[in-house]
Amino acid sequence: MLTMLKDGGVCSPKGFVASGMIAGIKTSGKPDMALLKSEKAARCFAVFTTNKVKAAPVLYDKSVLEHAHFASAVIVNSGNANACTGPQGYADSERTAVLVEQALGLAPKSALVCSTGVIGHLMPMDKVEAAIPVLVKNLHEGASEEFGTAILTTDRVLKSLAIEIETAKGTVRIGGCCKGSGMIHPNMATMLAFITTDIGMPIDFFAEFRANIDDSFNAITVDGDTSTNDTCILLANGMSGIHYSDLSISEQGEFRAALMTVMKELAKDIARDGEGSTKFIEIRVEKAESHKDALKMARFIGTSNLAKCAMFGEDPNWGRILSSAGSSGVNMIAEHTDLYFGDVQVLANGRPVDADKKKLESVVCQREYKVTLVLNIGEAAASAYTCDLSYDYVKINAEYTT
Amino acid sequence: MLTMLKDGGVCSPKGFVASGMIAGIKTSGKPDMALLKSEKAARCFAVFTTNKVKAAPVLYDKSVLEHAHFASAVIVNSGNANACTGPQGYADSERTAVLVEQALGLAPKSALVCSTGVIGHLMPMDKVEAAIPVLVKNLHEGASEEFGTAILTTDRVLKSLAIEIETAKGTVRIGGCCKGSGMIHPNMATMLAFITTDIGMPIDFFAEFRANIDDSFNAITVDGDTSTNDTCILLANGMSGIHYSDLSISEQGEFRAALMTVMKELAKDIARDGEGSTKFIEIRVEKAESHKDALKMARFIGTSNLAKCAMFGEDPNWGRILSSAGSSGVNMIAEHTDLYFGDVQVLANGRPVDADKKKLESVVCQREYKVTLVLNIGEAAASAYTCDLSYDYVKINAEYTT
Repeated sequence: MLTMLKDGGVCSPKGFVASGMIAGIKTSGKPDMALLKSEKAARCFAVFTTNKVKAAPVLYDKSVLEHAHFASAVIVNSGNANACTGPQGYADSERTAVLVEQALGLAPKSALVCSTGVIGHLMPMDKVEAAIPVLVKNLHEGASEEFGTAILTTDRVLKSLAIEIETAKGTVRIGGCCKGSGMIHPNMATMLAFITTDIGMPIDFFAEFRANIDDSFNAITVDGDTSTNDTCILLANGMSGIHYSDLSISEQGEFRAALMTVMKELAKDIARDGEGSTKFIEIRVEKAESHKDALKMARFIGTSNLAKCAMFGEDPNWGRILSSAGSSGVNMIAEHTDLYFGDVQVLANGRPVDADKKKLESVVCQREYKVTLVLNIGEAAASAYTCDLSYDYVKINAEYTT
Repeated sequence: MLTMLKDGGVCSPKGFVASGMIAGIKTSGKPDMALLKSEKAARCFAVFTTNKVKAAPVLYDKSVLEHAHFASAVIVNSGNANACTGPQGYADSERTAVLVEQALGLAPKSALVCSTGVIGHLMPMDKVEAAIPVLVKNLHEGASEEFGTAILTTDRVLKSLAIEIETAKGTVRIGGCCKGSGMIHPNMATMLAFITTDIGMPIDFFAEFRANIDDSFNAITVDGDTSTNDTCILLANGMSGIHYSDLSISEQGEFRAALMTVMKELAKDIARDGEGSTKFIEIRVEKAESHKDALKMARFIGTSNLAKCAMFGEDPNWGRILSSAGSSGVNMIAEHTDLYFGDVQVLANGRPVDADKKKLESVVCQREYKVTLVLNIGEAAASAYTCDLSYDYVKINAEYTT
């Protein structure tokens, strides 16, 4: 049985503590440093940006995890991405990790570092060094929100949740939080996500985690178009006393579903929080030849500026949806294709149908709705999540300074 | 020697006549039908949209040109795309071509049809049929502007030009016009382009024409993201009395350069006329491993919403340019990369340089400027052309109705 925990987050699973604070990196004076710690060294999986331009903390974390799949702590700062900062930037990430390890009495190479913010500025290491002892001193169990808040940049809301799973062996929890709000081309609008669980996790679970990324965080991004800092880290410390391999087959399925829910809900929260957005839209592609095809097409439509402007204008512009689908590079046959806004059909076999205008209007005026494209050439389906393109998106991004 | 002809267009080369008129397809009452005719059957090359959803006229023209590479006339309408119109739409395109052939006394399969406008509505064939005799009657040599105006939709300006080339054998001319103004994801914002020349052209010149498309019209579009109707047609009627193969090697080079200029200038005019745009920017990628790589990266940056919003905001945001380059899928090494706004360097070896802020400001405040990314890993270069993303882009596309 799954239960969503009220005010849940990264500290909801057993053995995780965290803290957050104002270190003075952001000029706004908002919280900008956070620390997450597991009581025991945790199994650690991470997926990083595919951008050729990788920030220093990404390069550092990759080098740490190359040899061991364990970590005990993650230190995060917002306000400075530590990207395009050369060898000094790398040395700063490494030094930050070492200082955390020393302050917490951890083994070397057991702390990871994440950064998000402006590019091209060296980290203010005096502020970072001064903050670490405070972060360590303030570590506590009820810090999910504190941690989740200190990692935000242009985000409008905290994105945090946790799920509890009852198994025959006892209770297991999964918590998570993330930051990110730039939606369309999320370069520069870094996405950071942290997932914690107190289950014991086998090393071959990584494939499962990796696949989940595609249907959650990658479902809200353009394929291959990621920021210099994008990172998703999973920590599994086993402190529930239950190991994944101890669960029955159906309980394993339940755990996997719960993990997927945590990741997908966090991803959807990013789309909901899209810069300047007024609407959240699920683009669903059904009856495609493969899951990969369905996801590729859904993502492609989800990034069409013309489609997104039409959503902002509350215009059920099926022509833009269909044309975008056709140029996604995915196989389709226009004459077989059906299209729905909510449950109102607008296209049957590639031809417009005489839809009830009032019903259609009531769908596209909603804050959240679903567009479903049924290709009728296979059995696979997938969703992408997007937001509309508004005046405020332009305003926010025209005025944001490097 | 090349000379740009004043008020030049599709009728500038010998033996081409045209006309344009108000047929009543557009509700705005603006000109919406046009006809182009060559005195002699012309060698005809065409490149069509790669969209899986192809409009009826595209399907019809492809079937005509599959067997013969000749055409004598092209009829164009704006206001209705004749896309997603099923078998009736195809029959309408075919009937339009046949009526033109009959009215002009041409052989079957010698007229082509192009349409642009809203999707999903059957063509008002009564209006088309009534217009054809008028278009035929009005054909004349001075109709470049008339033709170029009647093909426009959301375009703000006429896009038309012609070049004259002096050769040892005599004078050859190339003319052209196009429509298109949606820039970022040009689906729905159909691009139509017509190039005429009075040179005689060998059939194997097609490869040259196809390659030119990549560096002109495709340099302003997202790779593979095209509308249901995109079409570029080249007609070469040989009426200058000069055949391409008669030219000296250097004259052939001059002709090819002139053709490239016509195509590139028309393409740049589309970017300049981008919906709601206030700026025109050339994205130049140099010292890449291959021309294909350079073009792919330049195009990728040219479609980044974040970069385009920064251009609108007159913010020299090199972080967005570099991050977008890194996620383009093209090989690069951040630590080798230089970046310039105009001639002001902002990045050297992947690190920010202390650029003169006043100089930098004066570049990004210009109506037109160039951003140059130097990868320093090869010898190839290419440019893409883009415009900024403004409030008006959102306004135009939020309010445009299917």
